[in-house]
Amino acid sequence: MELQFNLKAYFKTSADPTPAREAVAALFEEANNTLLTKGAPEGQGAKITEWKLGEDRIELTLESGRYVRAHDAILRLKKVLAEALGKKYKIGIRGVEVESFTIKLPAEHELKALKVPYIKSMENVDGGIILELEVGEAEMKNRVPDRILTLLEEKIEATKYGAKAEHWNLLWQREPMEHPFKEDPTQAMMKEGWLKRGASRGQWIHGPQSTRLFRAFEKIVFDELLEPLEYREMIFPKLVTWEVWMKSGHAKGVYPEIYYVCPPKTRDPEYWEEVADYYKVTHEVPTKLIKEKIGEPIGGMAYAQCPPFWMYVTGETLPNEEIPIKVFDRSGTSHRYESGGIHGIERVDEFHRIEIVWIGTKEEVVKCADELHERYMHIFNDILDIEWRKARVTPGSWHRKGCSGLLKETLSGQLTTKPVCLTAGRTANGLNSRT
Amino acid sequence: MELQFNLKAYFKTSADPTPAREAVAALFEEANNTLLTKGAPEGQGAKITEWKLGEDRIELTLESGRYVRAHDAILRLKKVLAEALGKKYKIGIRGVEVESFTIKLPAEHELKALKVPYIKSMENVDGGIILELEVGEAEMKNRVPDRILTLLEEKIEATKYGAKAEHWNLLWQREPMEHPFKEDPTQAMMKEGWLKRGASRGQWIHGPQSTRLFRAFEKIVFDELLEPLEYREMIFPKLVTWEVWMKSGHAKGVYPEIYYVCPPKTRDPEYWEEVADYYKVTHEVPTKLIKEKIGEPIGGMAYAQCPPFWMYVTGETLPNEEIPIKVFDRSGTSHRYESGGIHGIERVDEFHRIEIVWIGTKEEVVKCADELHERYMHIFNDILDIEWRKARVTPGSWHRKGCSGLLKETLSGQLTTKPVCLTAGRTANGLNSRT
Repeated sequence: MELQFNLKAYFKTSADPTPAREAVAALFEEANNTLLTKGAPEGQGAKITEWKLGEDRIELTLESGRYVRAHDAILRLKKVLAEALGKKYKIGIRGVEVESFTIKLPAEHELKALKVPYIKSMENVDGGIILELEVGEAEMKNRVPDRILTLLEEKIEATKYGAKAEHWNLLWQREPMEHPFKEDPTQAMMKEGWLKRGASRGQWIHGPQSTRLFRAFEKIVFDELLEPLEYREMIFPKLVTWEVWMKSGHAKGVYPEIYYVCPPKTRDPEYWEEVADYYKVTHEVPTKLIKEKIGEPIGGMAYAQCPPFWMYVTGETLPNEEIPIKVFDRSGTSHRYESGGIHGIERVDEFHRIEIVWIGTKEEVVKCADELHERYMHIFNDILDIEWRKARVTPGSWHRKGCSGLLKETLSGQLTTKPVCLTAGRTANGLNSRT
Repeated sequence: MELQFNLKAYFKTSADPTPAREAVAALFEEANNTLLTKGAPEGQGAKITEWKLGEDRIELTLESGRYVRAHDAILRLKKVLAEALGKKYKIGIRGVEVESFTIKLPAEHELKALKVPYIKSMENVDGGIILELEVGEAEMKNRVPDRILTLLEEKIEATKYGAKAEHWNLLWQREPMEHPFKEDPTQAMMKEGWLKRGASRGQWIHGPQSTRLFRAFEKIVFDELLEPLEYREMIFPKLVTWEVWMKSGHAKGVYPEIYYVCPPKTRDPEYWEEVADYYKVTHEVPTKLIKEKIGEPIGGMAYAQCPPFWMYVTGETLPNEEIPIKVFDRSGTSHRYESGGIHGIERVDEFHRIEIVWIGTKEEVVKCADELHERYMHIFNDILDIEWRKARVTPGSWHRKGCSGLLKETLSGQLTTKPVCLTAGRTANGLNSRT
C-alpha cells in the first residue's frame, strides 16, 4: 500500500459561482498539470478528480500521494481561485469546509487506535491503516494531518524495531586494571556514616566526607576542563515549565520520568485552612485533599538541566564575535522518576552534575566537542587513572533525550548550531545514560 | 465560661459486673478524691458524677475542667478498674465506648465550623463554643481531643490579634550612608544583559556576570564565616517529603506557599502514550489529563532548606565529643509560591542560599549563634560596607516558619538543642523574611 490522501471539501463562496463555471473548469484543469504537481516527481502530484458547483460553494475531491499532500493542495488552490474569481467575477472565497478526509498508509502490523484529537476513526486493513480525520482549514494550515502521519509512522517504525531500540557500539576501552577496592561503595560509605538515605526515593543525604569527595571531583573539572577551555558559569532555573520542554523537545515524551510540579491554586490561607487543621488534628497529611486543591502541573523539576538555558538565547541574534558561547551550570539538582533498579548512589532519582553547554557555528561546536573529549580523556587517564570505555549510543527514541540527540548528531557529523549539552563526568559520546 | 469536659462512656466488661457493685462504688468514690485529682489544684480534678451497671458494661459520666481532662481521667480509671475487677472478680475490661463527649470552651468571638475529622458538631454560644466530639478509645489515647482544643485555642487567639501578628522591633541600625547607585539593580542588570527572566514565575536566568557576583558573595561567606568557624559542607536533599515536613513542623501550615511535587502514577510508557501523542498532534501539553495521571503529592520542592538534614540525625545519639555539629548546604534551590509582590531579584519564587545548621547543648548553640552574629557584622561593616539594620522578629505563626522560630527562640534566650538554621546573607535575628 502506498500513502494516499482523499479529501472531499468545498470552498464557500460569497455568491453563486455559476457565472464563473468556465473559469473554474479551466483553472482546475490547469492546476492538475501545474500548481498541484509542483515539487512532485512526474505523475505523482495531487489531482482534482471531481468537482461541481453549488449555490454558495465549489465542491471538489482531491486525491494525492505523499508529495503534494491533499491538504496542502487545497490551500494552494484556494489562493489562486480567490484571485481568479475575485478580480473578474467579484466572488469571494469565504473559507474551506472539509466533508471528509481519508488517509491510507502502509503498515505491516496492526496499530491500536490512537487517543488523540482530530482522528475520527482508524481502521487496520490488509497492508495498512485507513484513517479518517476531522480537521478544518485551520488544522490543515497548522499541518495537523502531517503531525498525525509522523506520529503514526513513528509508531509503525517502533513495531518494527521494538521499544528498546537503543544501539550501543563500543568504540574503545582501556586495558583491564586491578581494582584494589572490591566492596559496594554505597554500602561501605553508609557503614562509615558518610551518607544516609534521604526521605524520598533514590535520594541521599551526603555527610561532610562524601560531600568533600564531590567537591574534589568538581575541582578537577574546574581546573582541568572548564577553566582551561574558558567555560563561564551561569545559573540555570531548576523549575522547568512546559514552555521550556516544548522548545527542547522533551514535551514529546519525557512524561513517565518527570517529578511534576503543581502550584497551589491560591495563596489564600483560608483556602488551605482545612488542610492544616486536618493535619493538626490527625497528624496525617491529607494528600488526596491537597491534590484537589493544587493547580494543574506547570512543568516539573529539572530533568536535563540545560533546557532552561535555551530561553536565555531565544529570540536573540548572536553577533559573530560572541560565539562560540561556552557556559556551564552547577547550581542545583536534577530529578528523574527512575525504574526499580535504584539502590545505591550510582543510580538515583535526585542528582547533581555540572552541565556544559556550547553554541556556535557547525565548525565551532565540533571543535568544542573535540576539546572536551580530549580533556575527559586526560582526566580519566592521567588524574583519576580509572578503567573506562567509549561507546556510540543511538537512542531508539531521540525525542526523549533532547540534548543528547543533538550531541550525538554533532559527534557523528550531522552538525548543528543549536545548544549542545554535555554532562561533566561522562565522555562526549555517552559513558552512561545520564544525558 | 471555663473550659469544661463532659464525657458519657462505658467500660465493656467480659461478664456481668453486678457481683462487683460494691467494689466499683468504693473505687469510684476513692478515685474522685485521689486518682482523678492528681495534678490538679484543690477541687479542680475530674469527677464521676453518675454511674450505673449494665449487663455487660459499667456506664459513667465524667466531668472535668482543664487539669485532669475527662478523656485522661477515663483512661486512668480503666487501668485501676481492670486491676480491681480482674483479680478478685475475674471480670475483664474489654475497652471503652464513648456515648457522647462534649467540650465547652470560652471564646469572645464566633468561630466558623472547622472541617476536621472527629468533630460531630460545633456551636457558638454566648461566651464560648460547645463542641461535640466523635472519638473512641484510640483517639483519646492519641490525644486527639487535646489537638482539637489546641487548634481551637490557636484560632481564638488569632481572632484576638488578627492574622498578621508579626512583631518587628528595630534593635539597631547603621548610620545613614550615601548611596552612589540609585537605579533599580534588577532593571540595570537586565539592561546590561547580565540576567533574564526565567520561564516560570519569580525565576531568573543568571548570565556569567551576575553569576560571578553570586560566587563572590559566596566566597566571602566561605572565607570570612564558614571556614574560620569550622562549618563543614553537606549536601541536603532538595525534594522534601511530608515525613520531613511533619518532623520540622512545616506540615502544620506551609501549604499556601509550596510548589507541590507529584510523581507519575507509573513509569509505563504505554500509560503516558496518549499524553505524548496529544502533544505531538496539537503542540499543546494536556495539563488537565496529566493531572489525572499523576499521583498525589509526595511533598514539595525545598522550602526552608534545612529540614531534609534532620533525617540525618533522626534516631541517632550524638556522642558529646561530636557536638556541636556545625554544617552547611549550598547544593541547590529553594522554591516558594510568593505573593504578587515579586518583580526583581530581591523577591523571587526560586532562590539560592547557603543554609547553616548547628546542633549542640543549650550553651553551645547560643555560642554558635553569637559567633555567627559577630561574623555577619564583620562582613556587613568591614567588607561590604553597607547600611543595614538589626531587628527582633516574632512571627505571628511560628509553626509556619519551623527553623526561624527556633532560631529566634535561641536568640531571645529560650534555648534549644534542636537543629537551628540560619540563612547566610542576613543577620542572625532576621534582616529579611527568608527564614
